[in-house]
Amino acid sequence: MAMAKIEPPMIVLNVKAYLESMGEKGLALARACEEVSEQSGIAIAICPQTTDLAWIARQVKIPCLAQHVDSVTPGSQTGWIALESIKSAGAAGSLVNHSEHRLKVAEIDEIITRARALDLLTIVCTNNLAVSKAVAALDPYALAVEPPALIGSGIPVSKAEPEIVRGTVEAVKAINKNVIVLCGAGITTGEDVKAAIELGSEGVLLASGVVKAKNPKAALLDLVSLL
Amino acid sequence: MAMAKIEPPMIVLNVKAYLESMGEKGLALARACEEVSEQSGIAIAICPQTTDLAWIARQVKIPCLAQHVDSVTPGSQTGWIALESIKSAGAAGSLVNHSEHRLKVAEIDEIITRARALDLLTIVCTNNLAVSKAVAALDPYALAVEPPALIGSGIPVSKAEPEIVRGTVEAVKAINKNVIVLCGAGITTGEDVKAAIELGSEGVLLASGVVKAKNPKAALLDLVSLL
Amino acid sequence: MAMAKIEPPMIVLNVKAYLESMGEKGLALARACEEVSEQSGIAIAICPQTTDLAWIARQVKIPCLAQHVDSVTPGSQTGWIALESIKSAGAAGSLVNHSEHRLKVAEIDEIITRARALDLLTIVCTNNLAVSKAVAALDPYALAVEPPALIGSGIPVSKAEPEIVRGTVEAVKAINKNVIVLCGAGITTGEDVKAAIELGSEGVLLASGVVKAKNPKAALLDLVSLL
Amino acid sequence: MAMAKIEPPMIVLNVKAYLESMGEKGLALARACEEVSEQSGIAIAICPQTTDLAWIARQVKIPCLAQHVDSVTPGSQTGWIALESIKSAGAAGSLVNHSEHRLKVAEIDEIITRARALDLLTIVCTNNLAVSKAVAALDPYALAVEPPALIGSGIPVSKAEPEIVRGTVEAVKAINKNVIVLCGAGITTGEDVKAAIELGSEGVLLASGVVKAKNPKAALLDLVSLL
Repeated sequence: MAMAKIEPPMIVLNVKAYLESMGEKGLALARACEEVSEQSGIAIAICPQTTDLAWIARQVKIPCLAQHVDSVTPGSQTGWIALESIKSAGAAGSLVNHSEHRLKVAEIDEIITRARALDLLTIVCTNNLAVSKAVAALDPYALAVEPPALIGSGIPVSKAEPEIVRGTVEAVKAINKNVIVLCGAGITTGEDVKAAIELGSEGVLLASGVVKAKNPKAALLDLVSLL
Repeated sequence: MAMAKIEPPMIVLNVKAYLESMGEKGLALARACEEVSEQSGIAIAICPQTTDLAWIARQVKIPCLAQHVDSVTPGSQTGWIALESIKSAGAAGSLVNHSEHRLKVAEIDEIITRARALDLLTIVCTNNLAVSKAVAALDPYALAVEPPALIGSGIPVSKAEPEIVRGTVEAVKAINKNVIVLCGAGITTGEDVKAAIELGSEGVLLASGVVKAKNPKAALLDLVSLL
Repeated sequence: MAMAKIEPPMIVLNVKAYLESMGEKGLALARACEEVSEQSGIAIAICPQTTDLAWIARQVKIPCLAQHVDSVTPGSQTGWIALESIKSAGAAGSLVNHSEHRLKVAEIDEIITRARALDLLTIVCTNNLAVSKAVAALDPYALAVEPPALIGSGIPVSKAEPEIVRGTVEAVKAINKNVIVLCGAGITTGEDVKAAIELGSEGVLLASGVVKAKNPKAALLDLVSLL
Repeated sequence: MAMAKIEPPMIVLNVKAYLESMGEKGLALARACEEVSEQSGIAIAICPQTTDLAWIARQVKIPCLAQHVDSVTPGSQTGWIALESIKSAGAAGSLVNHSEHRLKVAEIDEIITRARALDLLTIVCTNNLAVSKAVAALDPYALAVEPPALIGSGIPVSKAEPEIVRGTVEAVKAINKNVIVLCGAGITTGEDVKAAIELGSEGVLLASGVVKAKNPKAALLDLVSLL
């Protein structure tokens, strides 16, 4: 069996727990991602709200990722999210250690190892250069560096701190050349995406820029327009 | 608008994160609950895996409850479960503070208060008499007392510690007569349910006894057989 | 053996983790409390920084309380604080569930029960009326109601929300007449303390008003001046 | 100012929260470490119970380390342990991320960075090879690899899994040659220490083998006997 993957350059849309991304609105966002991906040929993955995961993943063809997964094995784990549960729901993998949902280092290691065995992708979020290097050593599918100060700011990391993107890519590849490096925080336009790619990253992770846009599909079209 | 409610006596099935309750198997469990509820006239609610919540709640007519909800408001809350998200998914409410997913007391208070405003039901799990009294003062829709030592034991609380059930019902009603008292832990047969009701409780919360049964529908039929 | 107690009206000083309360400065604060208590005859208890607990408790005669205790039993619990450890350090008890260090409801119950068996006092912090009633049902030595919005504000709860103090005292005593009710948040002057007592509370819990005062002893003398 | 350090080979004794290491018994353990260190010339550091930290650190000349420190800055942090508090208490540094008290990866990074600025040593515990490499990238003073299954087992990691010790030393030094590598879990005799050193580690972290020994000083003398 070929290992699951998402072909770079990629756009990963985390819809968080916004009112604008719940239920039917979340499904509409997923369909917009699907349409733009089909039209542009650029890979777009979506991270639906956990409660909507199976419902949305069963209706769209693009990769769906969980926003979070817990380091638990299936069983008596009321309300915790097992890797097997997201796989059963149709997810291709999960964000791990988002800045709004951080994990212990041994948990990240365990999740990455178990996900690989289940053919699930892991995109581990990091907050700076040192943590990115640490996470690279744990051998995830990808990591997404997001300086916390820029999350939701509308200021793209590729503009505010270009050296963080370039430096992270170099340092991560020196430790583990297989890890895909994404960048996040503040990405809203196709220019931002293009700058991120030119700095060496292989895609972007974003949220409010699309979810809160008046026209999410137009926002997505703009994001892929310069790739 | 009439306030949401589930008519006692009630059976609440928590499917946890078992391999036997993921995806299609989870849907089959929900359909079995629906059929037995329709045949027997007894209220049966199911708590699907969080990842399956919207997918299952949109396909069955019985009340679906989340297994857990976080004390967050909608917004930048990656991977956390907001009350608004479970409502949007079609849930009628949520278990709160299950012994496998305990919450801080101020969080339980906040969840109960916000759930009521959203017309969502809360069933708060407790582990002994003192905690049951404390939770009663927070005014949830219902509470379910489950002595931790009996969870998954197959020994029903109604048999092992009948005085806990009777004493909890009395003490809870003395503090707050509106709170429905369920009992859990070790319930597997219709005899156990009958004993629980005779001790003053208004229903049961159970998990493995049905989820891991060879024939879940038969197990459910047995549970309601003496009501 | 007589049960440990602190005679109301009482002042409880939580020195938190301020730079102004570490090491020698923490000891000086404890000595100031000791002097003012001896001069005034009013009970003053201090909660030193955890790292300083044994060192300070062994040098002053006033009751020292831990700022926090974990619901662990002695053993392999690296870096966690057991009730037995604070007792061995010379503490008379502990704050429990401070708004900056909240606990799960079953943990609060366990700590109260185990503390009683060890003859240690528990002062459980609460954030509103409903949580105060819940905590009263758990039968602690005392509870301290502190509306979060007022903590560190300099606006005394006795002035901003007098009905919270009066209502909490009444509701708590209705559930459990043995529980001492303190009030906290925003207390800085003897007037504030007097108002708190007149509203029915039996003492106050405070922090920055004394710790950050230019002259902590003068601040303490003012606090007890109208009692 | 010269940077603080502990000269390898080193013995680090974590006394945990055992009844046998509280108060006067904890002080006696620290004095035994001090005597054996003076007699043998081998560096021995002790991690007292947090409540005893200042009291013990002010009475012995050997390095005292906190068992745990929280990623908080001084201020309104009731019951949390700031780096500044342990420094003020006389500690030379802290264990970080013990398997009984794990931390999030961003917290470990923040603690290491802030500790360095305060001239405090960090010994970060890890559970396997991958996590050791990750932690090496965060540039701590030292790391201590402790396979969880062996903690408290009496089976030394140097015997049960020698390749873990050797492999960890090599992999860690390849990422960051400045990081001291200790090994832990199951160490009880001088033979175990010698084996650990021969496998390339620069010291050991241990707990119950000394704390629960009938004669802790004799146990310590044995531990250093073959160095």
